[in-house]
This record gives sequence, structure tokens and C-alpha cells, in this order.
Amino acid sequence: MKKSLGAATLAEPTPLWCVGSYDEAGKPNVMAAAWGGICCSKPPCVTVSLQKIRHSYQSIMKRMAYTVSVPPAKLAKEADYFGIASGKDVDKFARTGLTPVRSELVDAPYVKEFPLIIECKVIHVYDIGLHTLFIGEILDVKADEEILDGKGKIDAAKLKPLIFSPGARVYHGIGENLGPAFQIGKDL
Amino acid sequence: MKKSLGAATLAEPTPLWCVGSYDEAGKPNVMAAAWGGICCSKPPCVTVSLQKIRHSYQSIMKRMAYTVSVPPAKLAKEADYFGIASGKDVDKFARTGLTPVRSELVDAPYVKEFPLIIECKVIHVYDIGLHTLFIGEILDVKADEEILDGKGKIDAAKLKPLIFSPGARVYHGIGENLGPAFQIGKDL
Repeated sequence: MKKSLGAATLAEPTPLWCVGSYDEAGKPNVMAAAWGGICCSKPPCVTVSLQKIRHSYQSIMKRMAYTVSVPPAKLAKEADYFGIASGKDVDKFARTGLTPVRSELVDAPYVKEFPLIIECKVIHVYDIGLHTLFIGEILDVKADEEILDGKGKIDAAKLKPLIFSPGARVYHGIGENLGPAFQIGKDL
Repeated sequence: MKKSLGAATLAEPTPLWCVGSYDEAGKPNVMAAAWGGICCSKPPCVTVSLQKIRHSYQSIMKRMAYTVSVPPAKLAKEADYFGIASGKDVDKFARTGLTPVRSELVDAPYVKEFPLIIECKVIHVYDIGLHTLFIGEILDVKADEEILDGKGKIDAAKLKPLIFSPGARVYHGIGENLGPAFQIGKDL
């Protein structure tokens, strides 16, 4: 018997991503966001949704660019901080000791110490309600060599991304490899 | 030194969700989708992106409704099959032995054996490119009691959702609890 939990954003899993942008003064900023996901393969696009009151909202609207830096589990504390503090008040890079790197492709910074980076040009902006949905065309993905497998593919077990649970408001790490997609169901 | 992997949909983590809909003939269908995410808190909304050639695309366009059924790791094989076969050719519920349940809120079925269900009314449809982005307003979330913690919140460690890695094309399970969100970064 299923229990109703009401009309709420209780999806699982959601990502813990860190969205980088430059504000009006040119200060690099980064915020944590769990409302996002891939939305198109061609052109490759990823969404992030932000409230208008966020400091990053104006930054992204002005420069029509953002990055997604995927934090590794060992930097969970820093990534969580990016979702607590506001770039209005503090320099989050300075506070955490992490390093902003200017993207050469889009007008936004990314987090050097995070092993997976997605550089995005905003191609659509949709007001949905409390949140505004940004559709970012992915111009490049950059990864540390250490998170790649023998075939040059990203190995999630090496990346160790963070998974956010909106209901319990906790982070989980990545678990064991459960097999190849589009294959394990073939014999059904 | 970061290595460029090109303009590709290499985000981590992405969800393995199963999107339920009724086709023109009223047959319940379900497809696997990893392109999706929460996109708004008020109204609560979740996106899924589908190619126009998918059988589910016409179904959702006609009935403006879908469900997201979140598969548990123990049913990874069935969920993977939902991403391999097409509802044009087969009855995926019959083939897997899983049970379609008619939502009482939206004109779409969900998967009874999956422990977390999100029932959505489509409120926006955006053509992005190869994929069309559906914005579904969440009318209710339903969960099996077994996946709830002592406070009635979804416990991801009990749900055991699947995480899809688009680059390596593998599934991972959920890992260990890494602490409370909006708290572990507070002392920074």
C-alpha cells in the first residue's frame, strides 16, 4: 500500500551540482543546486533552476552563461557551504579556499578542485514559478584524468558524485556498479 | 590538468526513471529516461525529456500526463528493459510481469512494484532539439512505507534508486549517507 506524501519535489536521485557564474562586479560565484538534469542530446543541454532572489540569477541572466562543477564526496562540506552562503555577502571561493577558473568557452568560472566540469551557454530561459529554468547548451565537458576509466569514459566510482535526497535533506555517495545500461534487461 | 571530453551529455549523477503513460489505444506503457530532474519548487515540477520518435511521446502529448516510477536496484533488469523495448511492439508490463496501476490524479499509469511514484500533469512542452522537454506539475508523490524513515521521509538507502552514468553507460546503486544538507558546510 502506497502512502501519499503530497504534491512535493520528492524525486530521487537528484544531483548536488555547483553552478558557477560571474556577478555584475565580475566576482566569481558558485551556488549549490539540486534542481537540474540533462534535457536534450542534440544540442547537448543541461538544465538548472534558480530562484530569482539568488545572487546567481542576475549573474546568469546578464552573461547568459554558467558552468556546472560536480563536487566529489571528499569536498561535500565545501559544496554544501555553496548552498548555504550567498555571493551577495561573501566570496565563497575565498572562504572555502577553492579556486575559480575562467572558462575559455563561456563567460563563467568553474571550480578547479572539482573533477567534472560542464560549460554552458544559456539558450532558453523559462519562468516556471518560484524557480526559473535555464537551458544551457553544453559547449564542453572537462574531467580530471583520475576519474576516467581505461576507455577514457567517466567512472562514477572514481568521480564519487554527491546525491541529494530532498525529503530527508541528506547527501549520499555513489554505490556499487550494477551493470551495463541497455544490456542487463536484454534477456527479458 | 583537465581533459576535454567534448560537447556531450556527460553529467553525473543522472537518474534512472521510468515514465508511465497510456497510448492512443489505452495500453499502459513505460519507458526508461535519464534526461530529467526537478525544475521548480512552487508549483512542484519535474522534467522529463523524450525524443519525438518514442512511443511515449505521442501518448504524453495526447493525454498531457505522465508518471515517474522510481525503480529500486533489485528491479534494475526490468527498468533497463523499459529503456530497450518499445511500447509500439510489446506490452512491457506483461513482458516483465510488473503491474500497471491507473493514477487517480492524472491520465497515466505507474508501476506498482516500484516504491516511489510521482504523478504529473504536463503544464509546459518545450522543443529543445532532438529531445522535447516536458514540465510536469507534481500532483502527488506516493511511497511504499518500507522506504520511509522514522520521520516519514524517504530514506534513499531504503529506496535504493538507480543512478545512470551516461559516459560509461552503467548503473550504480546509492552509497553511504554523507550527512545532512545545509548543515555539514555550516562551519566554513
